[in-house]
Amino acid sequence: MEGEKLKAMDSEQLREYGHQMVDFVADYYKTIETYPVLSQVQPGYLRELLPDSPPVHPEPLQNVLDDVRSKILQGVTHWQSPGYFAYFPSNSSVAGFLGEMLSAGLNIVGFSWISCPAATELEVIVLDWLAKLLKLPEAFMSTGKGGAVIQGTASEAVLVALLGARDKMLKKFGKESMGKLVVYTADQTHASVQKACQIAGIYPENIKILKTDSMSEYALSPEVVSEAISQDAASGLIPLFLCATVGTTSSSAVDPLLGLGKIAKTNGTWFHIDAAYAGSACICPEYRHYLDGIEEADSFCMNAHKWFLTNFDCSVLWVRDRTALIESLSTYPEYLRNKASEANAVVDYKDWQIPLGRRFRSLKLWMVLRLYGQEGLQSYIRNHISLAKRFEEFVRQDSRFEVITPRKFALLCFRLLPPPNDENQGDKLNRELLEAVNSTGMIFISHTVLSGKYVLRLAVGAPLTEERHIDTAWEVLQEKATTLLKPYRNGTHIYSNGSGAKIERRRGSGGKGKGRAAEIGKGKGRAAEIGKGRGRGGWKRKGEGEGVVFSGSGLVGAEIGKVEGMGGLKLEK
Amino acid sequence: MEGEKLKAMDSEQLREYGHQMVDFVADYYKTIETYPVLSQVQPGYLRELLPDSPPVHPEPLQNVLDDVRSKILQGVTHWQSPGYFAYFPSNSSVAGFLGEMLSAGLNIVGFSWISCPAATELEVIVLDWLAKLLKLPEAFMSTGKGGAVIQGTASEAVLVALLGARDKMLKKFGKESMGKLVVYTADQTHASVQKACQIAGIYPENIKILKTDSMSEYALSPEVVSEAISQDAASGLIPLFLCATVGTTSSSAVDPLLGLGKIAKTNGTWFHIDAAYAGSACICPEYRHYLDGIEEADSFCMNAHKWFLTNFDCSVLWVRDRTALIESLSTYPEYLRNKASEANAVVDYKDWQIPLGRRFRSLKLWMVLRLYGQEGLQSYIRNHISLAKRFEEFVRQDSRFEVITPRKFALLCFRLLPPPNDENQGDKLNRELLEAVNSTGMIFISHTVLSGKYVLRLAVGAPLTEERHIDTAWEVLQEKATTLLKPYRNGTHIYSNGSGAKIERRRGSGGKGKGRAAEIGKGKGRAAEIGKGRGRGGWKRKGEGEGVVFSGSGLVGAEIGKVEGMGGLKLEK
Repeated sequence: MEGEKLKAMDSEQLREYGHQMVDFVADYYKTIETYPVLSQVQPGYLRELLPDSPPVHPEPLQNVLDDVRSKILQGVTHWQSPGYFAYFPSNSSVAGFLGEMLSAGLNIVGFSWISCPAATELEVIVLDWLAKLLKLPEAFMSTGKGGAVIQGTASEAVLVALLGARDKMLKKFGKESMGKLVVYTADQTHASVQKACQIAGIYPENIKILKTDSMSEYALSPEVVSEAISQDAASGLIPLFLCATVGTTSSSAVDPLLGLGKIAKTNGTWFHIDAAYAGSACICPEYRHYLDGIEEADSFCMNAHKWFLTNFDCSVLWVRDRTALIESLSTYPEYLRNKASEANAVVDYKDWQIPLGRRFRSLKLWMVLRLYGQEGLQSYIRNHISLAKRFEEFVRQDSRFEVITPRKFALLCFRLLPPPNDENQGDKLNRELLEAVNSTGMIFISHTVLSGKYVLRLAVGAPLTEERHIDTAWEVLQEKATTLLKPYRNGTHIYSNGSGAKIERRRGSGGKGKGRAAEIGKGKGRAAEIGKGRGRGGWKRKGEGEGVVFSGSGLVGAEIGKVEGMGGLKLEK
Repeated sequence: MEGEKLKAMDSEQLREYGHQMVDFVADYYKTIETYPVLSQVQPGYLRELLPDSPPVHPEPLQNVLDDVRSKILQGVTHWQSPGYFAYFPSNSSVAGFLGEMLSAGLNIVGFSWISCPAATELEVIVLDWLAKLLKLPEAFMSTGKGGAVIQGTASEAVLVALLGARDKMLKKFGKESMGKLVVYTADQTHASVQKACQIAGIYPENIKILKTDSMSEYALSPEVVSEAISQDAASGLIPLFLCATVGTTSSSAVDPLLGLGKIAKTNGTWFHIDAAYAGSACICPEYRHYLDGIEEADSFCMNAHKWFLTNFDCSVLWVRDRTALIESLSTYPEYLRNKASEANAVVDYKDWQIPLGRRFRSLKLWMVLRLYGQEGLQSYIRNHISLAKRFEEFVRQDSRFEVITPRKFALLCFRLLPPPNDENQGDKLNRELLEAVNSTGMIFISHTVLSGKYVLRLAVGAPLTEERHIDTAWEVLQEKATTLLKPYRNGTHIYSNGSGAKIERRRGSGGKGKGRAAEIGKGKGRAAEIGKGRGRGGWKRKGEGEGVVFSGSGLVGAEIGKVEGMGGLKLEK
């Protein structure tokens, strides 16, 4: 190599190696179910496997691919696995992948229009397209005073919105008013809002984290916000920013946008809507109502990289007044000056975001919209929601579990009920259950805490997830639950605690048909009758008119024919 | 599609379409020289070509690829073209491209160790590798109290460093001290530092932009910084942050790190080094001295996506004290809690950056380091620097031009000299020259302003650039200069002003050999003798002992045999 010139870009080498990499990635997807979903490595595992220094001489691609197979993949948590149900999804699709390839191939840096006109213009157009799919108000379209921009993440989206709001307010009240600016969030709001406040210099005591509760299904109450704002305004503080969420991270709660928006407007407060997760669902007419009230919003964010098939990262931020962002974020050093910018004839996205440089991310969103079309995308969302419903039914049918909040989209919050009169065991049990199921490698779910309870979260959303994966997830959960409950079976325990608990049915998930039967429990343990609402936190369950059959093949079997109403079980046996 | 399930991820479709896309990208690189480097479209061009709404039904990939060819590519500014010399480079390489493919294929989100252990661990290891290549102090390695992280851009890198510094200082002095925090930069510092200050809430009057000048080759003087800090400290302000640059954007100036660092240390000021561009060169022992003094730095940034073959984005930030970042940027909501994080046994990169989510960017840097090796990368840098030298020689050999600052790396700042006694025309002439050469589509260069003068910047750095492209760039510049100078030719004008000015030689670039001859000027115009240093700003040139032959085939031809010394020409004819 010494003295030779490196040919780092060669179209024929790119072709040859590129084809190899395509096959590698295609094979990865083909065999993705063979990997443990959650990586099972220990901290520091890779240091043992790789050398301390980079090579002096070039190595062939084959070496690297061998290392990916033998060293990297074991440390990967497989977000694209059909058994991935943790956090929220981060979709990869063929279209999204191709878009990333093309973007990496062109490898432009689109900070200004001039630096790559197509990157800016395609972004403007495609985000208008997406606004139409979501039926957003005209104000957010590029044709008005608003517009949209692709950010890396919802964290950056809320940060730039907050900065726009902050600087507009400081312009009015003077920069010494920093200590008076107040931001309102719910205790369910994503941590990124708290972080944005830290970055923007909002005083910690002025970040008002308002309480929600199970009564409102963890949605933020307009009354609570109104009261907080009134109090603050009365004491000379400035109500700067209110963040509402459509699909909270913990439980996919939806804040009442209309009520909150009106309060914000009345008080001159910037109203931001974080629909990072559930925004995608709103392209379906039947879910669009969750965005009602968006007319009041100053900014709105939806992550196309979560549940919209656009490979990470692609978080879309719409704003009502783009000048607020631009005034806060623009710089215009001499070395970036150019005629088009000076004529004010173009969008320069560098002034809508934190970084200067930016990738050609609109390509992947464009390809997703074109390769799948509105109908394809709607059917995609609906399929996941229907899979989540299927899972919900399983949970509801097993009286050892409880559903914590009504499922709105494709996330279910549930938990294994603690033994009667032993609520203290609840958190421990569910923490152990989480560990147990995740360490099987079959599925990966995550958790949250709601009303002080440790709760399991199962979010359907990986593109490869099918019914059978939902069924497997439930089998694994049941099996591990049964094992965990063993110590409790004498005295307080119920039916079916064998490790072989299995779902026998393989029927399509089809809404709320009556008389559907689930056969559960081939365990060898002792199965007890299900109590009839043994008080708060006990083994009661909330049926919804679903017919279920539990046939315990253990020592004692209980057959339940019908579940009536909520909170009680009628045993037909 | 209605009712059908969308198969958005299918390994065989990914394989088939992926191969098509690889060929598309390979063909793009094969034919890249056929595109105008700087897109020649007018604002709004794409809106005319695309529909107003996304398709309802899915479309085949072929439609999209056809549109990329016929509608998108004309709007692309081709950063990978060998004729791209604007701003700074943004390298694409086969390894970088493959790394992006693999990263997009796995499509993990690596916010915490647990969310993808390999992503975090590979990043830690590979950044230690890079630290070794750059011979960074031990303090920046992951094994000590410091460490490194991949940010999207140098803008984000300096922002997180500033936030770390800010919050450490506010912890000490109280958050009401915000208005006392001062940031020191040079007038050559990248605008991202100004922007970071805006975001972090530094008071505008406390952003001290210190003057540099041509005498110090636009480097920041430690004396100037020392004086500014002393003054501020005396008036009760807090010297928070000093940013030095290795390779400024305008002219690749290098600030004297050691002197600046010592002043910063004495005053408890956070010392950040922005080596976004020139850091890459410092892997070559002959350029490493530019980093001398880095021992004093608190943070150091180098963009692997600029001149290090790692596709955008990949900006590496090293810090001496990682807890400063973490204390400023960490959030730990319940839904992200996990055993590994709680045991403090792992790095959670979410706490080192603005966003929560992050791609598996270490893969591409790892692949670049392995596929090219230390030697390959060094030869890559050296080749570009040698090409830039070649260009510099051309400029120095043409007395109509002047080199503005000594070339350190692969960027040359130069300008077309205004006619004698008409310095006012200088900016206009060079602005026109920039427009003229960029509108040919053959090359794309950019500009800056130094000491009040409009200056052209030619930065060599695209992976495909070879000698012939340097020669073409110079031909285009000469030809357009000649045309532009026509109005001046009576009275003050010189040789060769035809549009056919051509470099005939096609010899290897080989240092400073004597007697190399360039034949220029087949124009039909009148060629005059070259004046002998006609005073400041006139047509003088700075030769460096290179032999050049200008043979004007026009009405009058001037042959220059030798150039001696600086500032004057000896005509041998």
